[in-house]
Amino acid sequence: MTAVRSTLPDEARRVSCEALQDTLVDLLGLSLIGKQAHWNIVGPRFRSIHLQLDEVVSAARNFADTVAERSAALGVPPDGRPETIAKAFTLPAPKEGWVRDSDAVQVMVESLQDAIGRLRERIDATEKADLVTQDLLISITAELEKQRWMFDAENFPRES
Amino acid sequence: MTAVRSTLPDEARRVSCEALQDTLVDLLGLSLIGKQAHWNIVGPRFRSIHLQLDEVVSAARNFADTVAERSAALGVPPDGRPETIAKAFTLPAPKEGWVRDSDAVQVMVESLQDAIGRLRERIDATEKADLVTQDLLISITAELEKQRWMFDAENFPRES
Amino acid sequence: MTAVRSTLPDEARRVSCEALQDTLVDLLGLSLIGKQAHWNIVGPRFRSIHLQLDEVVSAARNFADTVAERSAALGVPPDGRPETIAKAFTLPAPKEGWVRDSDAVQVMVESLQDAIGRLRERIDATEKADLVTQDLLISITAELEKQRWMFDAENFPRES
Amino acid sequence: MTAVRSTLPDEARRVSCEALQDTLVDLLGLSLIGKQAHWNIVGPRFRSIHLQLDEVVSAARNFADTVAERSAALGVPPDGRPETIAKAFTLPAPKEGWVRDSDAVQVMVESLQDAIGRLRERIDATEKADLVTQDLLISITAELEKQRWMFDAENFPRES
Amino acid sequence: MTAVRSTLPDEARRVSCEALQDTLVDLLGLSLIGKQAHWNIVGPRFRSIHLQLDEVVSAARNFADTVAERSAALGVPPDGRPETIAKAFTLPAPKEGWVRDSDAVQVMVESLQDAIGRLRERIDATEKADLVTQDLLISITAELEKQRWMFDAENFPRES
Amino acid sequence: MTAVRSTLPDEARRVSCEALQDTLVDLLGLSLIGKQAHWNIVGPRFRSIHLQLDEVVSAARNFADTVAERSAALGVPPDGRPETIAKAFTLPAPKEGWVRDSDAVQVMVESLQDAIGRLRERIDATEKADLVTQDLLISITAELEKQRWMFDAENFPRES
Amino acid sequence: MTAVRSTLPDEARRVSCEALQDTLVDLLGLSLIGKQAHWNIVGPRFRSIHLQLDEVVSAARNFADTVAERSAALGVPPDGRPETIAKAFTLPAPKEGWVRDSDAVQVMVESLQDAIGRLRERIDATEKADLVTQDLLISITAELEKQRWMFDAENFPRES
Amino acid sequence: MTAVRSTLPDEARRVSCEALQDTLVDLLGLSLIGKQAHWNIVGPRFRSIHLQLDEVVSAARNFADTVAERSAALGVPPDGRPETIAKAFTLPAPKEGWVRDSDAVQVMVESLQDAIGRLRERIDATEKADLVTQDLLISITAELEKQRWMFDAENFPRES
Amino acid sequence: MTAVRSTLPDEARRVSCEALQDTLVDLLGLSLIGKQAHWNIVGPRFRSIHLQLDEVVSAARNFADTVAERSAALGVPPDGRPETIAKAFTLPAPKEGWVRDSDAVQVMVESLQDAIGRLRERIDATEKADLVTQDLLISITAELEKQRWMFDAENFPRES
Amino acid sequence: MTAVRSTLPDEARRVSCEALQDTLVDLLGLSLIGKQAHWNIVGPRFRSIHLQLDEVVSAARNFADTVAERSAALGVPPDGRPETIAKAFTLPAPKEGWVRDSDAVQVMVESLQDAIGRLRERIDATEKADLVTQDLLISITAELEKQRWMFDAENFPRES
Amino acid sequence: MTAVRSTLPDEARRVSCEALQDTLVDLLGLSLIGKQAHWNIVGPRFRSIHLQLDEVVSAARNFADTVAERSAALGVPPDGRPETIAKAFTLPAPKEGWVRDSDAVQVMVESLQDAIGRLRERIDATEKADLVTQDLLISITAELEKQRWMFDAENFPRES
Amino acid sequence: MTAVRSTLPDEARRVSCEALQDTLVDLLGLSLIGKQAHWNIVGPRFRSIHLQLDEVVSAARNFADTVAERSAALGVPPDGRPETIAKAFTLPAPKEGWVRDSDAVQVMVESLQDAIGRLRERIDATEKADLVTQDLLISITAELEKQRWMFDAENFPRES
Repeated sequence: MTAVRSTLPDEARRVSCEALQDTLVDLLGLSLIGKQAHWNIVGPRFRSIHLQLDEVVSAARNFADTVAERSAALGVPPDGRPETIAKAFTLPAPKEGWVRDSDAVQVMVESLQDAIGRLRERIDATEKADLVTQDLLISITAELEKQRWMFDAENFPRES
Repeated sequence: MTAVRSTLPDEARRVSCEALQDTLVDLLGLSLIGKQAHWNIVGPRFRSIHLQLDEVVSAARNFADTVAERSAALGVPPDGRPETIAKAFTLPAPKEGWVRDSDAVQVMVESLQDAIGRLRERIDATEKADLVTQDLLISITAELEKQRWMFDAENFPRES
Repeated sequence: MTAVRSTLPDEARRVSCEALQDTLVDLLGLSLIGKQAHWNIVGPRFRSIHLQLDEVVSAARNFADTVAERSAALGVPPDGRPETIAKAFTLPAPKEGWVRDSDAVQVMVESLQDAIGRLRERIDATEKADLVTQDLLISITAELEKQRWMFDAENFPRES
Repeated sequence: MTAVRSTLPDEARRVSCEALQDTLVDLLGLSLIGKQAHWNIVGPRFRSIHLQLDEVVSAARNFADTVAERSAALGVPPDGRPETIAKAFTLPAPKEGWVRDSDAVQVMVESLQDAIGRLRERIDATEKADLVTQDLLISITAELEKQRWMFDAENFPRES
Repeated sequence: MTAVRSTLPDEARRVSCEALQDTLVDLLGLSLIGKQAHWNIVGPRFRSIHLQLDEVVSAARNFADTVAERSAALGVPPDGRPETIAKAFTLPAPKEGWVRDSDAVQVMVESLQDAIGRLRERIDATEKADLVTQDLLISITAELEKQRWMFDAENFPRES
Repeated sequence: MTAVRSTLPDEARRVSCEALQDTLVDLLGLSLIGKQAHWNIVGPRFRSIHLQLDEVVSAARNFADTVAERSAALGVPPDGRPETIAKAFTLPAPKEGWVRDSDAVQVMVESLQDAIGRLRERIDATEKADLVTQDLLISITAELEKQRWMFDAENFPRES
Repeated sequence: MTAVRSTLPDEARRVSCEALQDTLVDLLGLSLIGKQAHWNIVGPRFRSIHLQLDEVVSAARNFADTVAERSAALGVPPDGRPETIAKAFTLPAPKEGWVRDSDAVQVMVESLQDAIGRLRERIDATEKADLVTQDLLISITAELEKQRWMFDAENFPRES
Repeated sequence: MTAVRSTLPDEARRVSCEALQDTLVDLLGLSLIGKQAHWNIVGPRFRSIHLQLDEVVSAARNFADTVAERSAALGVPPDGRPETIAKAFTLPAPKEGWVRDSDAVQVMVESLQDAIGRLRERIDATEKADLVTQDLLISITAELEKQRWMFDAENFPRES
Repeated sequence: MTAVRSTLPDEARRVSCEALQDTLVDLLGLSLIGKQAHWNIVGPRFRSIHLQLDEVVSAARNFADTVAERSAALGVPPDGRPETIAKAFTLPAPKEGWVRDSDAVQVMVESLQDAIGRLRERIDATEKADLVTQDLLISITAELEKQRWMFDAENFPRES
Repeated sequence: MTAVRSTLPDEARRVSCEALQDTLVDLLGLSLIGKQAHWNIVGPRFRSIHLQLDEVVSAARNFADTVAERSAALGVPPDGRPETIAKAFTLPAPKEGWVRDSDAVQVMVESLQDAIGRLRERIDATEKADLVTQDLLISITAELEKQRWMFDAENFPRES
Repeated sequence: MTAVRSTLPDEARRVSCEALQDTLVDLLGLSLIGKQAHWNIVGPRFRSIHLQLDEVVSAARNFADTVAERSAALGVPPDGRPETIAKAFTLPAPKEGWVRDSDAVQVMVESLQDAIGRLRERIDATEKADLVTQDLLISITAELEKQRWMFDAENFPRES
Repeated sequence: MTAVRSTLPDEARRVSCEALQDTLVDLLGLSLIGKQAHWNIVGPRFRSIHLQLDEVVSAARNFADTVAERSAALGVPPDGRPETIAKAFTLPAPKEGWVRDSDAVQVMVESLQDAIGRLRERIDATEKADLVTQDLLISITAELEKQRWMFDAENFPRES
């Protein structure tokens, strides 16, 4: 017996919840590396970027919660355990130790850029499967693209 | 050149920041497994425990922030990256998939119990090294012991 | 002379406002039976479900308002009078008198399940007619699916 | 076995809960027709009356909750299901479709006037049975009389 | 010379302030035993009842304050000292030590039931003496009857 | 043609609205003399009484509004114009010029005492005419008696 | 001995406090007649003007407080007693009884117009005496001119 | 080198940002003419429409900000300078000078109607290019259609 | 089987929970006698001390809750029942009846002084047993010493 | 017939309203170019200046509203339409396209500097005409001078 | 090169900033001696004056910030360093050690009185130089005169 | 006779209050020099550091209040008068005049560093004398170390 029944047919549920699980990992990962940079950043823009990073973390945490609960609502248990994130998270991230402010900005641009690319693929993938899930992924993309722009604008002129 | 200078002598800093780094891992891990249980819990006490778990998560996140920033303040960069947590986190945690409410309660009691035991050792370890760090660890212990009691009371009568 | 002119062609308006009117009845009905269960529930989970039901009622009321005003905005007067709801509302509902907590959970799962099935049909029906209306129906579905999951999780293990 | 025991003797409970059930129907009905007028009103006073109607709806909803919970508290399950309201609600109400602003004002004056007349009878009826219930009915009457006055003042000079 | 003069004739003041003093003891007692249960409750409904008990405590404390100040306003000093409560408080109360959740619910039903019975006698007693005091007692009864219902509904099916 | 129709029979309306009009004058008068004392008080208790007087003014203003609107709701236009207050207000009041703190306390005790005496007569007078109006007068009396006690307690030991 | 000493020379104090006393009477009078119209207004614009009048009353009350306290601060006790207002208040005011909405608007335009004219004279009169007092009168004029405009705009097209 | 890189292919970016730039001009224009009407409106519905216009302005300003930042996020600098708006804004607008209330309502209906028509074309145009941008345009349309309905309902019966 | 397991060894738990139980009684007693004085105080400083006493009550109630829950968290059920307080509470307290303001101040100084002396002994006693409990007792002492100072300063010049 | 009558003589009104109209254009223009820079800024100080620009926009919008309503209050309809701003706005402004952070700071210093110079001339011009208008212009100058200082301080060391 | 350029001609800037610097010292000094009295006051009016002193401190701190930032805005760096205050602050102040409540009131009256006298001279001095600065000094004077009055009223009857 | 009696033995009081007095001077000094830098800072990081400095000031002011009141609570009057601070404050501070942003950061790192070193000595000194005082000094150290870290991180790479 399944604990929570789905409101979607099997294939649609499989596609949607795969997209949601992958998004969950990206968002939890972003929330962890955002905090990592928030704590370890050094340099003349410390305060400004330190605060901006917390906005990414806050957005990532809230969306992670919505994404995981949507998966549960569709009948598939989400997986956000430490080992799952460690294995599945592949976005660029800050190295161990102090991070220079310009490096923190650079790594956030890249990490958000990759996360957005992956979200856009999932938006396509879920169009047939579930418009409700697709709509959620669209909202997340809107927010991450806004965050990416702000770090990219901060990153001007780019070093390379 | 070190990015952030310490206000403690070397040995005191080493002892304190080791205690802080270990605590950081426990708290970030708790915040992740608390959310995992929050999303996957099923059973007649769903709503009650679902909400209680979010209070653990919220406390763990806030303390993790304070702990990491204290380590930075003492001149040692904290490490909260996904792979670090996955490697270093050893507290009991819910399995993958749906979690029955009584199992969620049970695993939280155990996980908090172990976290508290480890914190009490660090309270002893930091007494000489840094009373400010010790005071922070005492506050965390007070909160986690309160959370543990509430799950333990919820857990009555215990199955074994 | 029509009191409020439409921004949609006739056929698109007809399709959209039919979907909106049917949704309005479902939501007003849900708000009434949610309150009915909120008042009459008895059993060891009284407090927990009593509070959860009020969240369904609150969501249903707010969405009913938005849905009715969207119909008016499209030039078709919405109908939420008592006799209309009584005639058109067909979702499962609690019986008269005290309701055992497990029965309240069960009936909410079924009622939300049916409401969601009907909403998903309307999401399809309005895709061509009006993307703005469709987007509203998608948001309502997201919320009701979340509510349904929480009652279904509470309902574990199901009696039959 | 009764689910909830009463704190009143049988006859007093019967009288009080009959008054409460009738009041519940009037208030739920008022909340529905208030919203109906709120959505369908047209005319130069649209905004002003549109907002005023929501205050009636809000008052009616809050009092309905208190009235239903008081009935439960006295050991009689309240009945606010759609079919019950449709059958028992007899106050004047707006017709289907757009409602001219002056007609909305007129129908609210009449509907509130009738509701007040019925409440005053129940205030008399409950004096012996239960002063606590009577006190609640007095508060509702005070609020509805205030609302009625404001629509009546808005209605000046009356057309007939 | 009396410190605070009364606005009531002597006999009316005596009757009213006796009713107020007895109510004060009941309310202060309820606030203490409500907290006692709040702290010592164990069992699967721990969190739900733990929170509900705090609502009783909060209501009891606020009403106790109003009741005591009304007595002072009528020229009779209220008495809420520990020894007075211990001597005069006679409502059912939890025993020393941990309290099983179902027992906590049961004792609150009984304690509130008795408090209500006593309040209803005082409502009768003060009708002639002081309608202002009677009105206050009516409000307290309304609240305690609501609280009693919620514990009684939680208590279903009753064990005996 | 009357602008606002009454929900009461003629005699009941006459009695109720007379009581309300007299109460309106007392309350508006109290709000004016309360401010007069608030501005002109001098002496070592300046700040304490200055603040307490504003609480009387605030209560008097809010009740005046409710009282006047209730009269309108019953179909009789209230009269709160300057000349009406000046003519009809007969409660003790501070003299022109600076007021010593002890005198301010004394005059408030007397003024509130008289206002309460008059309110208690109107509570009796309206019992037959309109329980809703009576209930309002009871609430006002409760508040003014509380205010009177606090000034009287402040006034201890009384000079004569 | 004067209770409160002045920070101004005698003549400057006399001029300033005369201006303040006259302004106090105008503002207290405006607050009373604003409320009078707020309660007694009838007609299709009832709700709109009813609310607008309360904004005048609120502004008038706040400025009255500031004006009276400024007079006290300059060493002259302000006089806002009922008989003083009745005697000294000369601005146009609504008649006794119900007031048609258009009449209420008209009388507020006139009353504010006259108040403004008098304030502008006092602004001139205090320029030499006390710039601090003048600055306060300028703020009051700004607010009353804004209120007057809104009633005047509401009054378009004027009847004569 | 481009200051901010895009997350969209060139053609999709061109289509999306053209739609966004045109929407930006319409919204900034609406916010300016909404304020123009807000300040210059005269007539018996002054207050009601004065307030409603500010809601249009507030919605237009917030959406303009989101629209401009989305364009930046897609790598194209938005243009909201005075001369750009003046040149590109073509929606109906109030004339210079005082505006009669009925004219203000009429011009807002027309201006919003045109804005909606243009938005619906852009919703079609962006479907292929960027679902995230399309979703934003859908939200704006929903809000403007709601605003248009309220002015249209206010406008009943229409003069021609 | 114990309902709630301890995180402390037996002896440490015994010492800590004895200190907590004794502190609980002192705090609950202080909250009751603080209210007793709050209600019965008379004299020219009535308002000032009346308000200050409520701050003591509020602090005592909050700390009592924390203290009792800490005892539960350590596995020992706290006891705050009326008879327990009456028996165990030994701090100086106001007599029955009206209390002169200077006497209220005097008794609070003495009662807080004694409570502080007892707390300082428990701070010593718990140092070995449990630093978390000790830290809580230190916070309570800080707050009570602040309260004591304010009454002592108010008490100047002392009568004896 | 004029829609809104003035409280000023003709010449004073002409001078005051000319000053107000010119100020309105400057403030609306500032709010538009402030937003333009807010959206298009790039460079390492992006976040800091992005936020600071929104404070200028917010101040400019609020003052524009007050200035326009003051003109209306003086009987002259303000003009804030797009074409009016485009024609009359002459302050320095950012060019089309991305704006480097240092350029944004520089242009804001210059634009605010010019706006302040023009305001100071209007302060002189209105001294005779209307002290109320002058006082408003003084407040605006105070705020803009504060904003200018902050950009100028940010601009150190200046490039030329 | 000057860090921040002025918007005033040299002489006007010199006069204005001298007035601002002197005011800054007075306000920072007042904030320090207000706190000194707040901490050291003893006597029966302890609580009342203790709270009132904090209002002076809060006002002084806020005005000091505005005054210093205005000086910076005019191109002159303000000086609020400890040694500057110590050297330049000449207002009456409490002695070291405990301060009797009547002495605290007396010293605040004197200190505020002197501060006001000095401010009035600066109001004159800046009239020609800068009306914006003068307007700020007028606001400060208004607030300090209000504070002075309240202490002076509290001081009645004065000892000499 | 001492105004406020101590709860500590003489020697413990002497040690504790000396530590508190020295800390008071450091904190008041920090609050003054923090503001000095807040006002006079110039350079590209103006806004970021300007805001950060206000957080130091706010923390310093709040702790100063707690520290001074603790000294009073222990029976020793604290001394925070201008001349005392000027004489006793020895931490590094900004020079007179404009301060370049990098210099402001540098001086805050040094000043906080020295303040922390002094606090750590006082933490040792008070361990025997008074654990309550020690606990307060520990909290202050935690906060100042956090502030120091943030300026030090901002200061990277350090110039020397």
